[in-house]
Amino acid sequence: MATCVFDLQASPAQDAEALGQVFKGRGSDGIIIAILGHRNVDQRQEIKKAYEDIYEENLIQRLESEISGDFEKAVYLWMLEPAYRDAVLMNEAIKNGPKDYHVIAEIACVLSAQELLAVRSAYHDRYKLSLEEDVASHTTGHLRQLLVGLVGSYRYEGDEINAKLTRIEANVLHESIKEKKANYEEVIMILTTRSKNQLVATLNSYRDEHGISISKKLVDQKSNDFLKVLHTAIRCINDPKKYYEKALRNIMKKLGTDEDGLSRVVVTRAEKDLKDIKELYYKRNSVHLEDEVSKETSGNYKKFILTLLG
Amino acid sequence: MATCVFDLQASPAQDAEALGQVFKGRGSDGIIIAILGHRNVDQRQEIKKAYEDIYEENLIQRLESEISGDFEKAVYLWMLEPAYRDAVLMNEAIKNGPKDYHVIAEIACVLSAQELLAVRSAYHDRYKLSLEEDVASHTTGHLRQLLVGLVGSYRYEGDEINAKLTRIEANVLHESIKEKKANYEEVIMILTTRSKNQLVATLNSYRDEHGISISKKLVDQKSNDFLKVLHTAIRCINDPKKYYEKALRNIMKKLGTDEDGLSRVVVTRAEKDLKDIKELYYKRNSVHLEDEVSKETSGNYKKFILTLLG
Repeated sequence: MATCVFDLQASPAQDAEALGQVFKGRGSDGIIIAILGHRNVDQRQEIKKAYEDIYEENLIQRLESEISGDFEKAVYLWMLEPAYRDAVLMNEAIKNGPKDYHVIAEIACVLSAQELLAVRSAYHDRYKLSLEEDVASHTTGHLRQLLVGLVGSYRYEGDEINAKLTRIEANVLHESIKEKKANYEEVIMILTTRSKNQLVATLNSYRDEHGISISKKLVDQKSNDFLKVLHTAIRCINDPKKYYEKALRNIMKKLGTDEDGLSRVVVTRAEKDLKDIKELYYKRNSVHLEDEVSKETSGNYKKFILTLLG
Repeated sequence: MATCVFDLQASPAQDAEALGQVFKGRGSDGIIIAILGHRNVDQRQEIKKAYEDIYEENLIQRLESEISGDFEKAVYLWMLEPAYRDAVLMNEAIKNGPKDYHVIAEIACVLSAQELLAVRSAYHDRYKLSLEEDVASHTTGHLRQLLVGLVGSYRYEGDEINAKLTRIEANVLHESIKEKKANYEEVIMILTTRSKNQLVATLNSYRDEHGISISKKLVDQKSNDFLKVLHTAIRCINDPKKYYEKALRNIMKKLGTDEDGLSRVVVTRAEKDLKDIKELYYKRNSVHLEDEVSKETSGNYKKFILTLLG
């Protein structure tokens, strides 16, 4: 089977057969990397179908049962349809608790209205309950209101901006964050219901008025789970690529590297804006992301992530 | 043109032409009733298209400009696609203020997850903002949280019920309503995120435990806008047909009749469960809904509503 491995023209059935050989122990993990790392989202779905036809088992479930480390987990995420992948990441974040709630905000705020809806629908299908009820039953208070509002948002995506509103709401944000506790209800409504264009205009108005961005302001005094999630939501709405660049920078700086975070960002952005994020990364850090990843990771996991980065 | 009026086999183009004649003053309103009252939702969309082809103007906008009374308004609602119709009704309820907020809860709770989403999408298209931000900017406090949560809901629709949860949450509902103010945050999360099947089980558990339904309990002490909306939401989730029967009963009892309410219920349910609602009405009141409508309304409006009821 190894002959088809580096053949970019291989059919989904050939790819599926090669994967089956790996699971049977007659091929190496290198085959998985070589095949799947070079197949786009549609091709991967075809491979899944072909695998099921040939081996009469579900490839995703097979991969799930093989998950034993960062490599398997990254491959598993890569093989999921995007909406299901985000549903799985949301579910993990809910289970992991407050330290991962920024992931919920990240996914909810980066996706378009329609994409987020597809994630909610995938969540129903996979977990037999709604994303928002799962979030609600793990959280309380303002944090809950914010997270439930973010995952339930279905924002207007037109260009129209209400200019008068930007100044009023920039002021509401300023006052609430200054006094903490204060007016979180208003902040939550603004962040969870306004269109992204409106919010970006509001954030610009905030900066014009106060000479500092609201997200810098929040970093200075970030102190509880609510404000941390708020911070992530604002940054993901304001400039997702910049957010991801910074996220990768923080991941790389961590002792031992945060493989879950690295896999999440690389796998979810690979077919979207990873190229731009890599450029931003180089511009900001004067070092290529690939080189950093090479230093910080190893083995098949390293090979796989580098393939997706390439 | 009058020859095609009672022809159930008329083409959309023939129907559209007949409508054009009415607008030019060369036909009577009776033609509108005879044609549109007998065309289903798909046929009406075809007529709209044919009208635009023939007269080079939008039929809906034409109808809107003709609206001067209950008849024109009912015809206008009837001609809108269901999702746009519900968006218009939601928008009116928001503008009318607290006395109409039960309409927001009614529509949000009666529709399926997918139907409600179509209304949100129609709302974007028509009003250039999101339904939830419009609701949020007209309301405050718990009432806002409840309404925004209801219109943003995308409930799981599977059969699975968490039986343990029903008793716990029936108890939460009981305690919160008993003490008023108390625990509204929990009540809101339960009502806006749980599946309808789960909620019906919770409401049954409430009745088993307390010997009275929560909606009767709420009637006994209903005292503010929040509790009124909560009451509507609970009844629409628990048994929409029973809710509509009662709504019609209340409309008929009002001095002068509430034509807006009557049109809303008849037009929105005509192609869904109006037949069942009529039967329930007869069973409960020992009088046919048509007879009551005949007594309480007049003119073209009466003829049109009776056509839809027939």
